[in-house]
Amino acid sequence: MKEPGPDPLAGVTHVRVYFADTDQMGVVYNGRYLTWCEIGRTELLRDAGLPYALVESRGVSLPVTEATLRVRRPARYDDLVRIETVVSGLRTREVRFRYLMWRDDVCLVEAETAHVPVDRDAGHAVRLPQWLRDALVP
Amino acid sequence: MKEPGPDPLAGVTHVRVYFADTDQMGVVYNGRYLTWCEIGRTELLRDAGLPYALVESRGVSLPVTEATLRVRRPARYDDLVRIETVVSGLRTREVRFRYLMWRDDVCLVEAETAHVPVDRDAGHAVRLPQWLRDALVP
Amino acid sequence: MKEPGPDPLAGVTHVRVYFADTDQMGVVYNGRYLTWCEIGRTELLRDAGLPYALVESRGVSLPVTEATLRVRRPARYDDLVRIETVVSGLRTREVRFRYLMWRDDVCLVEAETAHVPVDRDAGHAVRLPQWLRDALVP
Amino acid sequence: MKEPGPDPLAGVTHVRVYFADTDQMGVVYNGRYLTWCEIGRTELLRDAGLPYALVESRGVSLPVTEATLRVRRPARYDDLVRIETVVSGLRTREVRFRYLMWRDDVCLVEAETAHVPVDRDAGHAVRLPQWLRDALVP
Repeated sequence: MKEPGPDPLAGVTHVRVYFADTDQMGVVYNGRYLTWCEIGRTELLRDAGLPYALVESRGVSLPVTEATLRVRRPARYDDLVRIETVVSGLRTREVRFRYLMWRDDVCLVEAETAHVPVDRDAGHAVRLPQWLRDALVP
Repeated sequence: MKEPGPDPLAGVTHVRVYFADTDQMGVVYNGRYLTWCEIGRTELLRDAGLPYALVESRGVSLPVTEATLRVRRPARYDDLVRIETVVSGLRTREVRFRYLMWRDDVCLVEAETAHVPVDRDAGHAVRLPQWLRDALVP
Repeated sequence: MKEPGPDPLAGVTHVRVYFADTDQMGVVYNGRYLTWCEIGRTELLRDAGLPYALVESRGVSLPVTEATLRVRRPARYDDLVRIETVVSGLRTREVRFRYLMWRDDVCLVEAETAHVPVDRDAGHAVRLPQWLRDALVP
Repeated sequence: MKEPGPDPLAGVTHVRVYFADTDQMGVVYNGRYLTWCEIGRTELLRDAGLPYALVESRGVSLPVTEATLRVRRPARYDDLVRIETVVSGLRTREVRFRYLMWRDDVCLVEAETAHVPVDRDAGHAVRLPQWLRDALVP
C-alpha cells in the first residue's frame, strides 16, 4: 500500500565506476556503496535548493547513525550507475533516505541510511529544524 | 537468553585510525566501517586456520550480499579500535558475521554482514562447502 | 619553449568533492588526488574513442609505475574541480599523463603519472602497441 | 656517499593488504600507497615520542605539499608489507619523509612526501617549531 499524502522528495544522479572503486573480485568494493549513498542524498539536497554545505553553515550536521545495504548484483568497472534517492522518513530527531542503484534497468543495490540532526557547535542531537524539514517535504 | 550449543567462532583484532579514515566532520567516514568488517572477518578466518586467500584458492569466494551498520558513537583520529567478530549464522547458502567495534570499554559500532558462497570459476552461488563449514564451527 | 610538433591529446572532466574525499583537516585527502588522475586519463581515453575497458579487452593494461603530486592549495568539500589531462610522453615502453586540477581559475594540484604497457595474460611489460599509440596522438 | 652527521630518524611498521586496498587488476590501488606513507610517518612520530595528534594539539599541522611514488612491483592481496620510513629533509619551512615498502626482501614501492608546517588557527605556513625539529633529529 502506498503511503498517503504527497510523494516524497526524490532525485536522480549518476556515478561512473573506476578502478579506484573496484577490488580484486572484479566488482565494486562494498564500502564504496555507502559513498554512493552520500552522493545520492547530497545531490538530492542540492536539487531541493538546500545544498548540504548550507545545512552545515546553519549549524546542523546529519551524521549517519544507521546504514543498510543489500547487494543484488555487484556494479562493475566502467558501469554508469544511476542512483535514485528518496526521503524515506522524517521524524522529530531522525531523517532517513532510501537508495536504489541501477545499471540500465537492472537494480544492483538497495540501501537505506538514518541520520540524526546534530548541533555542530554543541555536538549533541537536536530536533530537526523546521527549515530543514520544509526542504525535505516537496 | 544465550543460544544453545557450542559458542560460535569468535576473534579479536585492532585497527588504528589515520587521517585517511576520517572526514571533515572529524570522525571516521561511515563507509570505512565496512572495511573494518572485512578486516575483522579476515583475521577471524586466519585465526581459525583458514585464511581467506586459501578459501579463494579452493575456488570459493564469499561476496557481501547484505551489510548493516549502527553507529552509536563515531571513532575518531588516532583511536585504537578493537574489532570483535563472531560467526552469527551458517546456512546452506549463507554465512553471516557480526561485529562490535570498541574504543576501550565504549561500544562505537555494531555491524553485520551476510555472504553467499560463490563458485569463482562458474560465477554462481553454491552450497557452503563442508570444509568451510567445519572451519567456521569451533 | 613549446614542444614542436602537433598539440598533444588533451581533455577536460569534472569531479565534485564529497565528505568521502575529505579528511579531518577539512581538505581532500592527498591519496584521493591519484584517483582523480585515474578519472582524468580514463575520460581522456574515452573522448579519444578508445575507452580503457577496450584497451584491456585487447590484452593490454597500463598500470601506474610512477606518480608525482604537487598540492598548491587543497581542494575542499563541495568544490567542483576541473581536471585537465594531457598525454605528456609516449615512448616505446612508457606512456605519461600530466594533470592540472582547478577550482575556477585557481590551480590546486599538478600531477604526473607514468604507465608501462603490460600484456595482461603474460603479465610482463611489452612495447606500446601501434593502435594504442595512434589513439594517443591526435 | 653517506650524508655526514647523525643517522636520520627512522622507523618500521607493517600493514596487511585487504580486498579494500586492491583493484580489479588484482593489485593494490596506487592511491592507497599514499595512505601507507601516512601510516609510516605517523608511527615514526609516535615511536619518536611525539604522536601526530600531539603535534596538532600544539597548533601545528603538516599537510602534504608534494608526493612521489615509484611502484617497482605492486603489493598484492594478503601481503604483509613492511614500511620503512625515514626523515629525509628538515628545512626552516619543510619536512620530508622517504619510504620503502617491502614484501619480505623484495622492495615494492619507494615514495617521498614533503610537508609544510602550518599554523592550524591562522591557516598559513610557519617556521618549523624547535620542539618539532628536536623530535625529528634523533
